[in-house]
Amino acid sequence: MTELDTAHRQPEMPATRWGDPGEAGPLPDHVRELVSMVFPITDAPAAERVDVPAPALDRAHTAALAAVVGDADVLVDDATRRIRTRGKSTPDLLRQRVGDLGDAPDVVVRPGSHDEVAAVLAYCGEHRIAVVPFGGGTAVTGGLVVGAAERPSYAGVVSLDLGRMRRLLAVDPVSSTATLEPGLRGPEAEALLAEHGLMLGHYPQSFEFASIGGFAATRSSGQSSAGYGRFDAMVVGLRVATPVGDVHLGSAPANASGPDLRELFLGSEGAFGVITEVTVRVRPLPEMKVYEGWQWPDFAAGADAMRMLAQSDLLPTVLRLSDENETSINLARPDAIGGDAAGGCLMITGYEGTPEAVAAKQAAVTEVLRKLGGTPLGTEPGESWAAGRFAAPYLRDSLLDVGVLVETLETATFWSKRDELYRAVKEALEGALGEGTLVLCHVSHVYATGCSLYFTVATPGGEQPLERWLPAKAAACEAIVRCGAAITHHHAVGTDHKPYLTAEIGEVGVTALRAVKQALDPAGVLNPGVLVP
Amino acid sequence: MTELDTAHRQPEMPATRWGDPGEAGPLPDHVRELVSMVFPITDAPAAERVDVPAPALDRAHTAALAAVVGDADVLVDDATRRIRTRGKSTPDLLRQRVGDLGDAPDVVVRPGSHDEVAAVLAYCGEHRIAVVPFGGGTAVTGGLVVGAAERPSYAGVVSLDLGRMRRLLAVDPVSSTATLEPGLRGPEAEALLAEHGLMLGHYPQSFEFASIGGFAATRSSGQSSAGYGRFDAMVVGLRVATPVGDVHLGSAPANASGPDLRELFLGSEGAFGVITEVTVRVRPLPEMKVYEGWQWPDFAAGADAMRMLAQSDLLPTVLRLSDENETSINLARPDAIGGDAAGGCLMITGYEGTPEAVAAKQAAVTEVLRKLGGTPLGTEPGESWAAGRFAAPYLRDSLLDVGVLVETLETATFWSKRDELYRAVKEALEGALGEGTLVLCHVSHVYATGCSLYFTVATPGGEQPLERWLPAKAAACEAIVRCGAAITHHHAVGTDHKPYLTAEIGEVGVTALRAVKQALDPAGVLNPGVLVP
Repeated sequence: MTELDTAHRQPEMPATRWGDPGEAGPLPDHVRELVSMVFPITDAPAAERVDVPAPALDRAHTAALAAVVGDADVLVDDATRRIRTRGKSTPDLLRQRVGDLGDAPDVVVRPGSHDEVAAVLAYCGEHRIAVVPFGGGTAVTGGLVVGAAERPSYAGVVSLDLGRMRRLLAVDPVSSTATLEPGLRGPEAEALLAEHGLMLGHYPQSFEFASIGGFAATRSSGQSSAGYGRFDAMVVGLRVATPVGDVHLGSAPANASGPDLRELFLGSEGAFGVITEVTVRVRPLPEMKVYEGWQWPDFAAGADAMRMLAQSDLLPTVLRLSDENETSINLARPDAIGGDAAGGCLMITGYEGTPEAVAAKQAAVTEVLRKLGGTPLGTEPGESWAAGRFAAPYLRDSLLDVGVLVETLETATFWSKRDELYRAVKEALEGALGEGTLVLCHVSHVYATGCSLYFTVATPGGEQPLERWLPAKAAACEAIVRCGAAITHHHAVGTDHKPYLTAEIGEVGVTALRAVKQALDPAGVLNPGVLVP
Repeated sequence: MTELDTAHRQPEMPATRWGDPGEAGPLPDHVRELVSMVFPITDAPAAERVDVPAPALDRAHTAALAAVVGDADVLVDDATRRIRTRGKSTPDLLRQRVGDLGDAPDVVVRPGSHDEVAAVLAYCGEHRIAVVPFGGGTAVTGGLVVGAAERPSYAGVVSLDLGRMRRLLAVDPVSSTATLEPGLRGPEAEALLAEHGLMLGHYPQSFEFASIGGFAATRSSGQSSAGYGRFDAMVVGLRVATPVGDVHLGSAPANASGPDLRELFLGSEGAFGVITEVTVRVRPLPEMKVYEGWQWPDFAAGADAMRMLAQSDLLPTVLRLSDENETSINLARPDAIGGDAAGGCLMITGYEGTPEAVAAKQAAVTEVLRKLGGTPLGTEPGESWAAGRFAAPYLRDSLLDVGVLVETLETATFWSKRDELYRAVKEALEGALGEGTLVLCHVSHVYATGCSLYFTVATPGGEQPLERWLPAKAAACEAIVRCGAAITHHHAVGTDHKPYLTAEIGEVGVTALRAVKQALDPAGVLNPGVLVP
């Protein structure tokens, strides 16, 4: 069991912005100039510090929870509750920017162990107190919210902050597995594993702040997923505390012992229980990393090449493809957006591993991509992508500051429906937001049978950016549903996607989810409002 | 949509034996001589034809079911019911060999479509008639049995034979997927796909008779799983008929739309619904196939080499390793069994694909295996394995005929626990069955983090072979549970493994299964007795 060196601890994020406040800042002048070529620039600062509503939870409950986890880890002060209000979607930030902290928890409880989690759940179940698990606080689909409509049926809302549970519990170098506590942030987990020469290799854009438990609870997928897999594919074991007892799953990498119940808790978003241990496949730290760029005549040609690689089981570690608009932005040429001959489409390929493995994979992939008509651009575009891979959320804050509304959404489908889905979502967003809106897209993950599409939208925020965005998001979701695609590939359901889940899994699927929810959380206190329609 | 050419239809299996009666026969003289070196040989023929119990289902119900599927597809004759009694485990065969047909269904109903399946389920739910889905009839863990204890609470037992549902419903060559009906046997599905230049690549030992629906419902794993994956990993979509409605899952290869409900129906053994369509990843037919043998000094050295391949993501299409005893038997040297220097351990490596892909993979794997101390044996052992890969169940019948009890069982664990599990199961079987028992084992599937162990047991059957086997199976299961391993890697739970499932998934896991069962099958008519403790 390894404790985390405090030097590796990630800072806490402010309520109104992404990330480390030390890294945040206004737009650099040259970027501001570029942005002003496309959008009207206005001054849209975040609200001055706003007090959160007074805690509604009775003091007797607070005291009882303190008896479980200790006085120091039951917190009701405004600052602590404020930064655990909602997640980091643009709507979340917009609400906080105008001073709306109505979704704040009544109390933040920080358990230090599985047993403390279990005791908190038991207490809250008995006293009908809602429990919202909080890992990195990076949720982007409303997964950390108990809405105003539901609050009156609870004695209060606990934010169950798992940030004290940051240990590496076990390493099995023979089996290449490690058992991690849920509160470890991405870099923290990697730092602990690196002491053993190992790594996890899960790098979503939220990597620097998101937590191991959150990756599991939301079925996260990272930028190296072509080589290392989605997070759910890395998981071989789970321990989950529920109000009716705890469950420890993962007798073997795979088995035929009935339904795979790990897949029931992966993606369960705290609605069925709280994940307290995650056992994952780990790998040796790569000896080298190479990131390259490729140019394709258009999005379809690049996507077809990705499909050929995936169907040949010949995937690099990193593989992503920007559409024409996103490519133009990446090349800092916003003037070229929408132009058909705007430099084609940029693909990033990355290879990690031993020098021999990298060389072999790189040679094989290069041969295929050349044959299919790709133009190699060398390592510069790859290095540039790698350097900025976690920076986009900071840029979003800076753009919100100047009145530009930026948000992302993502979906997935089978290859034969990729183009239809791409067009449908793009048209829905452009149609809802009108002229002057930029819709960018990239293929963020590929499978043999399909891929995900990750959209970024930028549009003038206007007077009421939240009211401007919500219908556009709804239009995009409806387009996704019409295409029969996934309402989310790696951002989870939360409260935002819940209205669309029934279309995807059917009434019978919803019936199954409800049955599990009712059986494991009979009092209905676990993250009420998310996931289950 | 493609109909199956009748030339591709697999024959029906007799009740007391495996496979095509035309392929069955007594032990060849040289084999009989080898066997007699190890076991006492006695004459143990199957019982003469025995009448099955009279159908207990009221004729009004039979008529109502005939109104759904047609008169010709509701069958109550003895022959039809007899060959749908139980599956093909050795206990199943032993019971049938002594004339025990007490578990026969009352009626065999053969729906022709999803809608007919749904209508049968609705009728049976309303009238409390048990429904046991029947695909290939190759179940080996008691998955086709409604026991005598449960029968009185049902109006009767329907064997829901899916053998009329044998169409290839759709092929999507761009996405590399195909949608198959559940009644297609392995060779039938491959024949339909081959017309499109495609294949599935799922070759369990039961391949020739087992069905697509059965593969999905039991989480089957095949002999080419190193290259093509377990069956559950091939599935991207499922349609399931349940008594409360139908569900169509698979919006994308993977998604974050909550728990993956496909994984709830995969392995559900007909207890939650009847799988009526399966969409799978398909591949181009391989241009070439190469199978080779490698010799290892001992089981541990060979297993470590497999682990290195899996952890390097460098797997051939076929990879299996026999322990010393199984190697001796394969080499027709039963005299060497138990001797430490009995020729080491035989590994089979197989490569399928384009000539270029085969050459590249073969070269890379060969380099690793040589470095790790393997001795290449050329293609002869590989070809020999491939030629006999589906023959073992026929040999089992021939051995039962001469009084030798043969059965298999399998499990899976993480690499660090492989040796402990191997020894524990072997000792449990040897301890329970006593001297003169042969326990053979091979690693049948590998993952980066672990592997499966597949045991074959041969022992003198004595006067009461069934009573001799059941305590040995129980001892093996208890050893598996003590090791924290999977009670089954690819044979499902059925009725045989049900007593051990709670130890593996915990009370909370069982609670979740029960909740789903209750919600989707409120009348409790779907394959009652299997899976859910």
